Amino acid sequence: MPLFLGLDLGGTNIKVGLVDHTAKLIAQNSVVTPAEKGPDAVLATMAQAARDLVAKQGATMDQVTAIGVGSPGPLDLKHGIVRKAPNLPHWVNVPVEAKIRELTGRPCVLENDANAAAYGEFWAGAGKNSDIRHFIAFTLGTGIGSGIVVDGKIVHGATGMAGEGGHIIIFPNGRLCGCGQHGCIESYASATATVKRTIEAIEKGWASEFGGPRQPISDNALAKSFKGRLHEITAKDIFDAAKSGDPLATKIVDETAETLALTCVTFSRILEPQMIVFAGGMVFAGDFLFDKIRAFYEKHTWSVPVPGPKILPAVLGNDAGAIGAAGVAYAKFAQ
Amino acid sequence: MPLFLGLDLGGTNIKVGLVDHTAKLIAQNSVVTPAEKGPDAVLATMAQAARDLVAKQGATMDQVTAIGVGSPGPLDLKHGIVRKAPNLPHWVNVPVEAKIRELTGRPCVLENDANAAAYGEFWAGAGKNSDIRHFIAFTLGTGIGSGIVVDGKIVHGATGMAGEGGHIIIFPNGRLCGCGQHGCIESYASATATVKRTIEAIEKGWASEFGGPRQPISDNALAKSFKGRLHEITAKDIFDAAKSGDPLATKIVDETAETLALTCVTFSRILEPQMIVFAGGMVFAGDFLFDKIRAFYEKHTWSVPVPGPKILPAVLGNDAGAIGAAGVAYAKFAQ
Repeated sequence: MPLFLGLDLGGTNIKVGLVDHTAKLIAQNSVVTPAEKGPDAVLATMAQAARDLVAKQGATMDQVTAIGVGSPGPLDLKHGIVRKAPNLPHWVNVPVEAKIRELTGRPCVLENDANAAAYGEFWAGAGKNSDIRHFIAFTLGTGIGSGIVVDGKIVHGATGMAGEGGHIIIFPNGRLCGCGQHGCIESYASATATVKRTIEAIEKGWASEFGGPRQPISDNALAKSFKGRLHEITAKDIFDAAKSGDPLATKIVDETAETLALTCVTFSRILEPQMIVFAGGMVFAGDFLFDKIRAFYEKHTWSVPVPGPKILPAVLGNDAGAIGAAGVAYAKFAQ
Repeated sequence: MPLFLGLDLGGTNIKVGLVDHTAKLIAQNSVVTPAEKGPDAVLATMAQAARDLVAKQGATMDQVTAIGVGSPGPLDLKHGIVRKAPNLPHWVNVPVEAKIRELTGRPCVLENDANAAAYGEFWAGAGKNSDIRHFIAFTLGTGIGSGIVVDGKIVHGATGMAGEGGHIIIFPNGRLCGCGQHGCIESYASATATVKRTIEAIEKGWASEFGGPRQPISDNALAKSFKGRLHEITAKDIFDAAKSGDPLATKIVDETAETLALTCVTFSRILEPQMIVFAGGMVFAGDFLFDKIRAFYEKHTWSVPVPGPKILPAVLGNDAGAIGAAGVAYAKFAQ
């Protein structure tokens, strides 16, 4: 049985996943990234973690057809090089594909970490065992990461910078995003942005992202319970308050959902995906969030009678990156 | 020398183009669409026009490797069927691929007309003789048509409804579009929408699409010269007035350009195309328009230091559809 190994390289941890050709996760592990020791130490740790996981299954590296690595970037995908990695000191032009091949004796393919996670959901998660060929995944965290699959393949664009779905502009001249643009969906609908909008609404009074005057926040339960410690509010607090009927929290969650729905509409017009999935902590709100996204999608989509995408939570959680990296190796070396 | 024949089916005319394998247009023609006589008559006219053009070049149909047909839709691309065509009476589930093959003896492939035109610009027009693999074309007319090429292939999506770039939402809850959505770029930046916004600005006073109060239109030259006949204003009049420094016309053209630039930014984040071209009458404004689009692109794009797309006028004009249909035949049957 051919095996595929995925490595999800992060600034804190390296996740390893061993997957078979049917996209079934056989084993997984996580080791600490020795980031401060520089690239060679990190690469050696990655290779060792790969060997250890394989050995623990009573298998040998010969049975591993190929290894996929999901990495933060920017990357040079053509040459398998990590150009820079914000959370990994001293990573400048590190030839990851060549090094991992050298250290493990197996073929290796490098992929952007957000793309790998999206491919994981496509191949082994929400999109598994289906005839889905057009698929988009978003991760709602500090920012919004995304990956796009068109006709079964990850879309990379001219230099590997495609799939940055968090930075489509939905509100021209709107909120300033960390990327330098104004009005990106990331600056409205990430978990961090959702918290930030809530704190602002409490501090300054409510103003809808979709227009209208500011409204005073008098006697709001969420505002009261976090009085003097607004910085402690989490996305979960906001969703819990919304579920209890808190009007401010409800409005915040609604506008996060509406922004995500507008994003789904725009992606549907451009790529007509069969499925769009969302990952990240906010997804645990489940149907409370997804029913809103689906309802706003119906509100904003055109009247052309074609079916829209399935809009669903991701299912692989934190394993998506490692499984997807293995999937990328499968797609490149097994087919 | 292998030849490829493209048919661009419209409600008024059928355009025919004969193209060689290097994407060179050898001959072309246009015949009237006998639309009122129904599908069989139209198909017979298409086949005859194809044979006539080939014969006129002293060639035979045997030298034609394949025929491509660009058609309005919705289409069933999988089965080569035109499901419906708004400007062609009695066209319901017409098996165009099979019929053209039967009538000409040559293999046939059906494509959406906007996609075919985009592919024409990619293969034989603005994108010719380049290493460009990621390409987007927009046609600014009554509406905004578009086609998307990713890694050298047209993007079709789940049911052939991808590539509807005119209907991405840039202004949530903005102008009502013909498609039923609010805030599509088509309802701001098509030639028709540009005229409509001008007439509104003259009638109601100026209000920026990007916010701010309405301003009275006193003593405006464009308003004066079309007094009592505002419905006669064309996009060319607006561009001419803007070139002469008319402030109202300048603002209208600027906001058309800014909307198109925001569209280019969003497409760049999603697909990272190497080139984006615009076709249609407004394109004749040349650098006057394109310099504005490029400047607004720089204003709105992120600070990540990667090159943006080339933003250029299309070069094939009305021939793009027929040439692109031939290109689709080339892509399917010659490679």
